[in-house]
Amino acid sequence: MATRIGRYTLQMDNRPCVEGYASVVGKKESEGPLAKYFDKSFEDTTLGESSWEKAESRLQTEAVTAALTKAGTTPKDIDYIFAGDLLNQCISSTFGLRSLDIPFLGQFGACSTMAQTLALSSILVDSGAARRAVAVTSSHFCSAERQFRLPLEYGGQRTPTAQWTATAAGAIVVGNQQKRPYVSAVTIGRIADLGVKDAANMGAAMAPAAAQTLSDFLQDTGTLPRDYDLILTGDLGLVGSELMEQILRENNLDITGLHNDCGLMIYDRRAQDVHAGGSGCGCSGAVLCSIILQQLQQGQLNSVLFLGTGALMSPTSQQQGESTPGIAHLVHLKSE
Amino acid sequence: MATRIGRYTLQMDNRPCVEGYASVVGKKESEGPLAKYFDKSFEDTTLGESSWEKAESRLQTEAVTAALTKAGTTPKDIDYIFAGDLLNQCISSTFGLRSLDIPFLGQFGACSTMAQTLALSSILVDSGAARRAVAVTSSHFCSAERQFRLPLEYGGQRTPTAQWTATAAGAIVVGNQQKRPYVSAVTIGRIADLGVKDAANMGAAMAPAAAQTLSDFLQDTGTLPRDYDLILTGDLGLVGSELMEQILRENNLDITGLHNDCGLMIYDRRAQDVHAGGSGCGCSGAVLCSIILQQLQQGQLNSVLFLGTGALMSPTSQQQGESTPGIAHLVHLKSE
Repeated sequence: MATRIGRYTLQMDNRPCVEGYASVVGKKESEGPLAKYFDKSFEDTTLGESSWEKAESRLQTEAVTAALTKAGTTPKDIDYIFAGDLLNQCISSTFGLRSLDIPFLGQFGACSTMAQTLALSSILVDSGAARRAVAVTSSHFCSAERQFRLPLEYGGQRTPTAQWTATAAGAIVVGNQQKRPYVSAVTIGRIADLGVKDAANMGAAMAPAAAQTLSDFLQDTGTLPRDYDLILTGDLGLVGSELMEQILRENNLDITGLHNDCGLMIYDRRAQDVHAGGSGCGCSGAVLCSIILQQLQQGQLNSVLFLGTGALMSPTSQQQGESTPGIAHLVHLKSE
Repeated sequence: MATRIGRYTLQMDNRPCVEGYASVVGKKESEGPLAKYFDKSFEDTTLGESSWEKAESRLQTEAVTAALTKAGTTPKDIDYIFAGDLLNQCISSTFGLRSLDIPFLGQFGACSTMAQTLALSSILVDSGAARRAVAVTSSHFCSAERQFRLPLEYGGQRTPTAQWTATAAGAIVVGNQQKRPYVSAVTIGRIADLGVKDAANMGAAMAPAAAQTLSDFLQDTGTLPRDYDLILTGDLGLVGSELMEQILRENNLDITGLHNDCGLMIYDRRAQDVHAGGSGCGCSGAVLCSIILQQLQQGQLNSVLFLGTGALMSPTSQQQGESTPGIAHLVHLKSE
């Protein structure tokens, strides 16, 4: 079982570990700076499917299948799959995973879903409630744009604060075989809402939640940012990252030189014209499940705080004048 | 920690228990046969809010607040809240619970969400990862109709297989204080999809999943239906209940006289003109968190299998010609 430290943090006692992981991406992502780290990339945004939603489902199928293979296991040996995505009713997960016949727990944490599924998988494996669990998430630029913003055919101008939803998926097999890297601790976030109402500025909506969860973790553990090799946020992008760093500075926490953001890593921001950076569950999923886990495995990184960040926004609530609440969940990954 | 029995079932070893529970309903539900069991009912479908979505959020706020009060506890003493609903991006949960400042884990299991949130809360409390967790869900007739089917103003004819989404919420505080009733075991379901495509026949889409999860549990535990006082499905309604019983009979499992369905209990089906019965996360949530938990507490029921049933349907996937996958999660509640 896990040990509670402070109010919000759970320390894992049995080293639930990454037994396998995989990332699958679309064309734009395969043209970005992390190209060589992804397990599989597709040249066609439809992945050969008849709709973008089916293409996104396919990303999850491919990511989980590859992660299982790399872990040397099969669906029969997985006790639970924690899965979620951005589409209404989480259909990428449902349709992408229905044929696997694994006990299924649908999760919704907006873009924080990779951290949420990894956190819950880790807690269950740590406690012995699961021998192996899979954490998976996805996003797709085209399915997200038309659901959350405007039809692609409209060709709307994007604002400087807008982010580009990654066409990508990441999957992790969490198990108890004492491999590296492993999950050392987990902090589940609280909803933070400072009243941001701009659907084209998700970074600002998520920044307060990210700062809050990181502060909770540091306070609970009595540690400082410099005790970690990397503080990796999910998809704050340029605007959100600067805001989070500013909020933290105001609370006397300096993360200069220690922070990076999956949304800033996945694309070449200028050359690829993605404005404030990448976003989407699949963005943090694919970055974590490629370069980050690889560097942890190989010892180039030893201690990483992965902070999945989510904007709990809905077109319906936006049209009703509501603000966008943010949430962030933290997973501390270690390799030694 | 929990002990795994068979392939799919987790037996709780430390009796995670119901420390408090509450149900909140709308007008139609307060005119039904269970009226006297609900904690609070609202005369106005808007609950005094400016939209149906905000009304549904309010149902969750009210249900959690009442359950916390009945448990004699406050948000500060809750380690996690597992919450979900039917609305896109689970906004009833997000907006209904954001002010509580409790670490938040959004769940999506369609109408199976009450069982899913209760199962995860129980697993975390059983293992010691949480001292107290809250499970909550809601649904609202008006917000669900316009999102999943047709604008209410259209006045569409309902088919005989159609069900009426309950305007209701249920919340449970799960803790480790060894009270009654307690959660004895949990079986997380697998997605089952037999190809049902009729958006007005959710019962048929869910019945195979319900039969599958119940069979898994009985096989894992080596027990028979007659070993339990009640097998309570979430919202199969009349059509789905008959189908599930038929599937079980074909597998030599007879649940005659032992089965009831929250969707058949919440309304007087004929007098209240609800066709095949009630449905929605809030339907099973409110029935469980009223008459059922009360009868378990008072010893009129001693051993109940609660099977939350969900149709993982989406208007988008339906329009793309996809079928509706079903899922069902089982929670075994005991009082002695």
